[in-house]
Amino acid sequence: MRNYRLTICFDGGAFHGSQSQPDLVTVQSVISQGLETILRKPHSITCCSRTDAGVHANGFVCNFHSDVDFEIKRLVRGLNAVLPPQIAVIECDEVEEDFHARKSAIKKQYIYKIWNHTQRNPFATGYSLHFPRYIDEKFLNTQAKQFIGEYDFSAFCASGASVNTFTRTIYDCSVKREGDYIIFSVTGNGFLYNMVRIMVGTLLDIADGKIEPDSIKDIINSKDRSKAGVTAPANGLYLNKVYY
Amino acid sequence: MRNYRLTICFDGGAFHGSQSQPDLVTVQSVISQGLETILRKPHSITCCSRTDAGVHANGFVCNFHSDVDFEIKRLVRGLNAVLPPQIAVIECDEVEEDFHARKSAIKKQYIYKIWNHTQRNPFATGYSLHFPRYIDEKFLNTQAKQFIGEYDFSAFCASGASVNTFTRTIYDCSVKREGDYIIFSVTGNGFLYNMVRIMVGTLLDIADGKIEPDSIKDIINSKDRSKAGVTAPANGLYLNKVYY
Repeated sequence: MRNYRLTICFDGGAFHGSQSQPDLVTVQSVISQGLETILRKPHSITCCSRTDAGVHANGFVCNFHSDVDFEIKRLVRGLNAVLPPQIAVIECDEVEEDFHARKSAIKKQYIYKIWNHTQRNPFATGYSLHFPRYIDEKFLNTQAKQFIGEYDFSAFCASGASVNTFTRTIYDCSVKREGDYIIFSVTGNGFLYNMVRIMVGTLLDIADGKIEPDSIKDIINSKDRSKAGVTAPANGLYLNKVYY
Repeated sequence: MRNYRLTICFDGGAFHGSQSQPDLVTVQSVISQGLETILRKPHSITCCSRTDAGVHANGFVCNFHSDVDFEIKRLVRGLNAVLPPQIAVIECDEVEEDFHARKSAIKKQYIYKIWNHTQRNPFATGYSLHFPRYIDEKFLNTQAKQFIGEYDFSAFCASGASVNTFTRTIYDCSVKREGDYIIFSVTGNGFLYNMVRIMVGTLLDIADGKIEPDSIKDIINSKDRSKAGVTAPANGLYLNKVYY
């Protein structure tokens, strides 16, 4: 059995999240169906993470084992021919037998896009959060740096998560401006449920004066979800890259 | 009665074209409903042009007469609050009584976006045409210049159009590259039915070697639709600006 890694890009608005669910169109289900169509037998797929409905991906990763002989280039072409237009296979490569899309990941990068203009942008709807009040991106960038480090991020985890530990390491976290877009970027060894969206919501609450500046470390230390900001909507979030 | 001009941006994928049609959601119908909601009485709306389903707009213009007293800023805010997210009113200004969104227009600019990459882009789906073979934009730009001038553009008009004359003046026409996007831009005093899409299709057929280079003037002179290229799909087309 050979082991293959697929790197995928998708518009999350078209899928009910990444993970297979009965009777719902998910990233995993369309990739499964695509592989079955091209390789003519079912294959079990392992995904790098569970993303919520509406969350996008520039570099989502999954892997599958197969005893079918195929040419990688032809598989990519074949999959892109049968997959819906809102998803594309960017790359396929053969990996070590023990490679596991989720367990082998050492870090992940998410980005969050904010359309920062008084007027909404019909073309940004579904692909960013509209925030009409002007954001001082340099100020917010200094605030974002407070997330960097190894902490118990309970305060930045939605309830209902079943994890062994709330401790995660954030390697980098930044806010920059690209024209009328504000781009939040965060890289860490793992993320709790809704963690990135609560981080963004907290920064925006700081921008709005609803949360005190320089209080992120205190919020982390409180381990109290109610101290952090709102959960920013899914449609501005992109799983940008998974590192192995 | 005062006369008001609205400048509008919309994602054409959400509407069945610009013009009101029974039981279909169109740009005109949502603007009409929005105005009635905000100004509390029906208003008749005149649009700058009829755009097909799927065609987008960065600067679509319409006008309406009203005897209701209102503050322009509040009208814009109110309309944007009640309109669907795929459409936004960018501007409203009071204009001369005889201003007519269509008849007063002196020229219009359309752009057409092409995603020029071997892989499709899930985020460009619906907002551009995917053309996988590499486009030499400088070559295509020289070809595009052949459209400039005053001509009978019958060869670039879809059948079924009822117009008095097929003569139109093209002031500027160009092709440029922006990263993996190719941007076609054309400005003219008016456009025949599907004219811009057939111009783009013809240029792409030239890029593909299906139509001879430097033959655009011959195609124009033939007045024969079958000599021109395919009609490029609606979803790459944007009404960019209307000049008055």
